[in-house]
Amino acid sequence: MPDIKITEVALRDGSHAINHQYTVEQVTQIARALNEARVPYIEVTHGDGLGGSTLQYGLSKTDELKLIEAAVNVADFSKISVLLLPGIGTIKDLKEAHKIGAKMVRIATHVTEADVSKQHIVTAKELGMETVGFLMMSHMAPVEKLVEQAKLMESYGADSVYVVDSAGALLPNQVSERIKALCSELNGNVGFHAHNNLSLAMGNTLAAIEQGATRIDGSIRCLGAGAGNTQTEVLVAVLEKMGIDTGIDLYKMMDIAEYIVAPILPKPQEITKDGLTLGYAGVYSSFLLHAERAAKRFNVDSRDILIELGKREIVGGQEDMIIDVAAEMAKKNKAVV
Amino acid sequence: MPDIKITEVALRDGSHAINHQYTVEQVTQIARALNEARVPYIEVTHGDGLGGSTLQYGLSKTDELKLIEAAVNVADFSKISVLLLPGIGTIKDLKEAHKIGAKMVRIATHVTEADVSKQHIVTAKELGMETVGFLMMSHMAPVEKLVEQAKLMESYGADSVYVVDSAGALLPNQVSERIKALCSELNGNVGFHAHNNLSLAMGNTLAAIEQGATRIDGSIRCLGAGAGNTQTEVLVAVLEKMGIDTGIDLYKMMDIAEYIVAPILPKPQEITKDGLTLGYAGVYSSFLLHAERAAKRFNVDSRDILIELGKREIVGGQEDMIIDVAAEMAKKNKAVV
Repeated sequence: MPDIKITEVALRDGSHAINHQYTVEQVTQIARALNEARVPYIEVTHGDGLGGSTLQYGLSKTDELKLIEAAVNVADFSKISVLLLPGIGTIKDLKEAHKIGAKMVRIATHVTEADVSKQHIVTAKELGMETVGFLMMSHMAPVEKLVEQAKLMESYGADSVYVVDSAGALLPNQVSERIKALCSELNGNVGFHAHNNLSLAMGNTLAAIEQGATRIDGSIRCLGAGAGNTQTEVLVAVLEKMGIDTGIDLYKMMDIAEYIVAPILPKPQEITKDGLTLGYAGVYSSFLLHAERAAKRFNVDSRDILIELGKREIVGGQEDMIIDVAAEMAKKNKAVV
Repeated sequence: MPDIKITEVALRDGSHAINHQYTVEQVTQIARALNEARVPYIEVTHGDGLGGSTLQYGLSKTDELKLIEAAVNVADFSKISVLLLPGIGTIKDLKEAHKIGAKMVRIATHVTEADVSKQHIVTAKELGMETVGFLMMSHMAPVEKLVEQAKLMESYGADSVYVVDSAGALLPNQVSERIKALCSELNGNVGFHAHNNLSLAMGNTLAAIEQGATRIDGSIRCLGAGAGNTQTEVLVAVLEKMGIDTGIDLYKMMDIAEYIVAPILPKPQEITKDGLTLGYAGVYSSFLLHAERAAKRFNVDSRDILIELGKREIVGGQEDMIIDVAAEMAKKNKAVV
């Protein structure tokens, strides 16, 4: 068994990077190649998980069940995984995904809301699926809180729990302390999912592995939301250099990245002003547009708004706060002038 | 004084990324903006240093002295730096650069050949320039050798010595041990120059800073040879998050990256198959084309050739070895079949 088991997320997190426009042909080609490269897990879902294809989260070009099925059909080695955010996806969605061959599910909640994952984790285990708890925006909780929430997910039946750095906001020492605490407090596997907003996806991933994480997410050609994830083919190369086995064929991964994935991208993944701002502020990417609109209206810098939202630990669903923050700033600026 | 002094290399190492096609107008615009953002040092030279504009290393669109002068003319805060590789650039080139206003020079040699830098370092100090020793391909020497060579450069008069990860081949722990050793053995400043071939430019840079490096190279929008360098505007953001002062204006840097540098790029900087292969193998990028030609001729994989060259620690000037390695491989493959 490999030392580190990688889940490839280009067909899920990477769905954000191509505006959820994957076709059955693309997913078939990519999943077949990843399967040949012996990637243990391939995640295939809308970027926001099962049921994510909505006006709010972005409509998928293709029904995600068709994409999942396409991947299942060509993967005789790799297990196909799906993501589920309770509130967006439902138990019914999970059962359908399982029925067409998904073998693993990752139940994702905000880092302080693990309790909403209970029924989904229990159902997944009943279905016989490998089940992962996925604690998003992990930078927003102190270590003790993170441990408490991870233990909850494990108590519901999760085989593994992931520290998910959704905003790409964590620094290596912050990853280390989080993974170390989980490894000492949990019985199951500990995983790490990085974003590259601060150009630290790889550095943070190595810090996580050093502290005992054995489940790691990667995205081929760095394809993911914001600044993308840990670039899988690069991760495989780095781990090979370190003598850590992933079971994955490095040359095949390099070729998939270069000759299959890169050509379908509307633009290469890089760290732009927006991506960096999100990582620096530690906020959801969905705040970006709201902040830009509010910035225009109140004549303040959208970055100042986002940083203030990060300081106040505003989470999804509290978008109204963005207007309040911008208005306050404008008032303050006026007072200063 | 800032805790960390950053040298911006987009107008030197980044020259590789745009095929040495910088114009006076572009350099003026970028240097002026970097000066306004209060970047301590801006390096302006052909990618391979003074005198690099040749058929072998790539002809510059504009005489580099004109580019250096353009930067000097708009930089009343930033010091303009030049790079010099003895053998490519000469003492005469150095004197000319100094005459038009370059205030710092970095004398670069292969990690085991510091002795060729002596007369250049001595001359630079006589000219009153801030002088840096730049030990390229630092992954190719054991720590003791690196320390010995750095001490040589310091004995010639270098104010600072840099560990230069030219191939982007170092892992964080390898950076740590190198920087730690230099910090304990040298009297002057220790610096670090990263490349992002293994997606570790930022992670390695933080490891270097943790061990005491105070001089760091960055390139705005990641613009540099191979997979690029440590992305400066991201580095400034990361260090701000860590409470480490660079003296640089973060928002201005983000804006320069997004609105001045990105638009002039023929393509964004990303980690491609070639870039990754070079970092994984730990070889010069100039070997790439030779290896590809040899691979075709002998029907072997160019990656296998490059990895073998890395193992044999082949350096620049030994390109003939590439054919030998390819021929041996073809023979071996035939024997196996």
